[in-house]
Amino acid sequence: MIILALNCGSSSVKYQLYSWEERRVITKGMIERIGQEYPDHKTALEQIIDKLTTGSSAVLKSLSEISAVGHRVVHGGEKFKSSVLIDAEVLEAIKSVKDLAPLHNPPNIAGIEAAQQVMPNISHIAVFDTAFHQTMPEHSYLYAVPYEWYGMYGVRRYGFHGTSHLYVSRRAAVLLDKKPAEANLITMHIGNGVSIAAIEKGVSVDTSMGLTPLEGAVMGTRSGDIDPAIILFMIEKEGFYVDEIGSILNKKSGLLGITGKYFDRRDIDRAAAEGDKRAQLAIEIEAYRLRKYLGAYLAALGHVDAIVFTAGAGERNWGLRERVLHEMGRFGIKIDHKRNEKARDGETESLISTDDSPVKIFVIPTDEELVFIEDVVAILQGRYDMHTKFKYSFEDPKYKKKGLGTRESGLRAGDEV
Amino acid sequence: MIILALNCGSSSVKYQLYSWEERRVITKGMIERIGQEYPDHKTALEQIIDKLTTGSSAVLKSLSEISAVGHRVVHGGEKFKSSVLIDAEVLEAIKSVKDLAPLHNPPNIAGIEAAQQVMPNISHIAVFDTAFHQTMPEHSYLYAVPYEWYGMYGVRRYGFHGTSHLYVSRRAAVLLDKKPAEANLITMHIGNGVSIAAIEKGVSVDTSMGLTPLEGAVMGTRSGDIDPAIILFMIEKEGFYVDEIGSILNKKSGLLGITGKYFDRRDIDRAAAEGDKRAQLAIEIEAYRLRKYLGAYLAALGHVDAIVFTAGAGERNWGLRERVLHEMGRFGIKIDHKRNEKARDGETESLISTDDSPVKIFVIPTDEELVFIEDVVAILQGRYDMHTKFKYSFEDPKYKKKGLGTRESGLRAGDEV
Repeated sequence: MIILALNCGSSSVKYQLYSWEERRVITKGMIERIGQEYPDHKTALEQIIDKLTTGSSAVLKSLSEISAVGHRVVHGGEKFKSSVLIDAEVLEAIKSVKDLAPLHNPPNIAGIEAAQQVMPNISHIAVFDTAFHQTMPEHSYLYAVPYEWYGMYGVRRYGFHGTSHLYVSRRAAVLLDKKPAEANLITMHIGNGVSIAAIEKGVSVDTSMGLTPLEGAVMGTRSGDIDPAIILFMIEKEGFYVDEIGSILNKKSGLLGITGKYFDRRDIDRAAAEGDKRAQLAIEIEAYRLRKYLGAYLAALGHVDAIVFTAGAGERNWGLRERVLHEMGRFGIKIDHKRNEKARDGETESLISTDDSPVKIFVIPTDEELVFIEDVVAILQGRYDMHTKFKYSFEDPKYKKKGLGTRESGLRAGDEV
Repeated sequence: MIILALNCGSSSVKYQLYSWEERRVITKGMIERIGQEYPDHKTALEQIIDKLTTGSSAVLKSLSEISAVGHRVVHGGEKFKSSVLIDAEVLEAIKSVKDLAPLHNPPNIAGIEAAQQVMPNISHIAVFDTAFHQTMPEHSYLYAVPYEWYGMYGVRRYGFHGTSHLYVSRRAAVLLDKKPAEANLITMHIGNGVSIAAIEKGVSVDTSMGLTPLEGAVMGTRSGDIDPAIILFMIEKEGFYVDEIGSILNKKSGLLGITGKYFDRRDIDRAAAEGDKRAQLAIEIEAYRLRKYLGAYLAALGHVDAIVFTAGAGERNWGLRERVLHEMGRFGIKIDHKRNEKARDGETESLISTDDSPVKIFVIPTDEELVFIEDVVAILQGRYDMHTKFKYSFEDPKYKKKGLGTRESGLRAGDEV
């Protein structure tokens, strides 16, 4: 079974072709400059298909070898609690929540419509970044703003990085030798985007990203939590337009905002080591704020079995993990410094707590692509159920990671969450 | 020694006259409708002085009996780390930070200038809501926004309710039989405004309010923490002006926003008991978010000696305290349900943790007025030093609260923090 996975951004289409039986990526690539070189998503897709099926780059004899197209859709609002086969009604529902993610959902929708035109006889399936967090209770997802905003405009916490939190939480349960429904976890997805999730009995009960991916921890270029009045204050001071301040908080803040130069933590570590004060400060602030989220979710959950670090920096940046977790013994969290320092290849699942630590600490390389593909295949095969009831291949204790998702590439694209 | 304490709002002046020797309020009152009935703060002050010194309401033979005027100033920016005698330079400095609190500081300044004109031969002293938190380290007070905003506009966390956090933290140290510099505390000021502070070795190292009093926990009418993108989203949806959305988040959000009707927790408790779902929800959300702050500061501090509840609801609403603290035994926090239920008179200092609770839990009625007056008197007497070095009368183990500050009145006025 061959699956084409698409992630359509406003000016790009990222694609991967998977062989399910072989659990491998057949080929992958990206088309950029949509709106310039390519007039629209449809033209870009035709180009991709041409590349996949003809000439020297061909990996398929014909389009009919593809069993389904999976579409990564950032925001599913409250309508989508799981991945879904796209029919006219579903497409309408996706369109109805597009205002919640004005940067992401419109190109996702354009991509679906283009793909349906180009490949009309194939199943199209949507996988949402938000679906995993739809188990959150009201007291976690409602903000203390006028209640009507929720009913009228859907203003609430949604959370993102769902496939990643799902993957690592299931793997953590395996490593704990527990059923997912027995595991309380705090999962920390620390990439360029950062989100933390509180997982109770296997399901998300709180997460740091909110209505949009702007809220929460310090990120590469996003501010995370701020006094909301800062927006009003800076509009007053600088006469910013709404779009401008939104763009600054999303693209010029976070680690980049503090350092003024870097959003990549490797650059920041290097600069800090060379004495750059603002780089040192960015490192401190980031760790301190992650530590506060950890504490907040410890208090929210009461009992926690394990803490999981994942995504780029979560998997590799042992110094960051050390700063977040140092001296937390009294919370039952004891990091093993040597194990932590060793866990940095981005490939291996590692236990980095001491043997006597009541709360385990894991580094688990994420595999959002595998969740994606399994959802697509299971829907095709009619054996899918929403994630709370579905058992993934990687929940098998004998599962060995085959590297379906690779760290640096994967399905992440342009305006990524 | 007689002290006149003033809290000048945009349309009101609240005053109290204190006898320091007797530790009592001689009289107090409020002038409202400045801008209407009274043309300005000066006229209002003249009216107050007239009332204090002439006719049947007279409590002073002459103005010269007043030794000093204390001015409550909401925002001291970074310039004021302690209370201060107001001279020309200080007044300029207060003016220079007025943009940080455009609602509060301009009337505070107008009040100082008016009082200096009306009582030119008296010492005028400023006491700031922010001063106590000036001990915060950079990693707590800097936001992950463009760093220039800090240098250019003073965008950082300041925190408020300083005199309250100071008072209860010193009292908690006494109850713990420790020096302030030995006590790690989490102080929760829960009134209509709500702020939580992390106190390390006696000084504030983090607090939930930020650049303004909007950030943090759910408050009576303030949203506290939200995804900052909600502001941009709602401006897009409703075409709000900046002032409008600011006003909604400050005055129509929080408990009022969730319930749609109530901001007073007594009304909310009543409505919840009668089955009002949104009132029940407001109660849950408020407690859940306080609990997360508690966890965050536990993690920030590592070791905590005591948790302190203060201000209106903190002192009286035992149900709220119960919800915040239930099942936190694994963090060393064990609430004694009976003790907690008893502690609700707003007058008595109570221990509400179990005898075997490693972390003590106190209910300590706050007394911001006493801090205020002591600062003023000590400055007058030339024995004041910044709060980190100053010993207050209420740090004496034999200190008995004389009720200088009364719960419902005190120095809080109009647009109160």
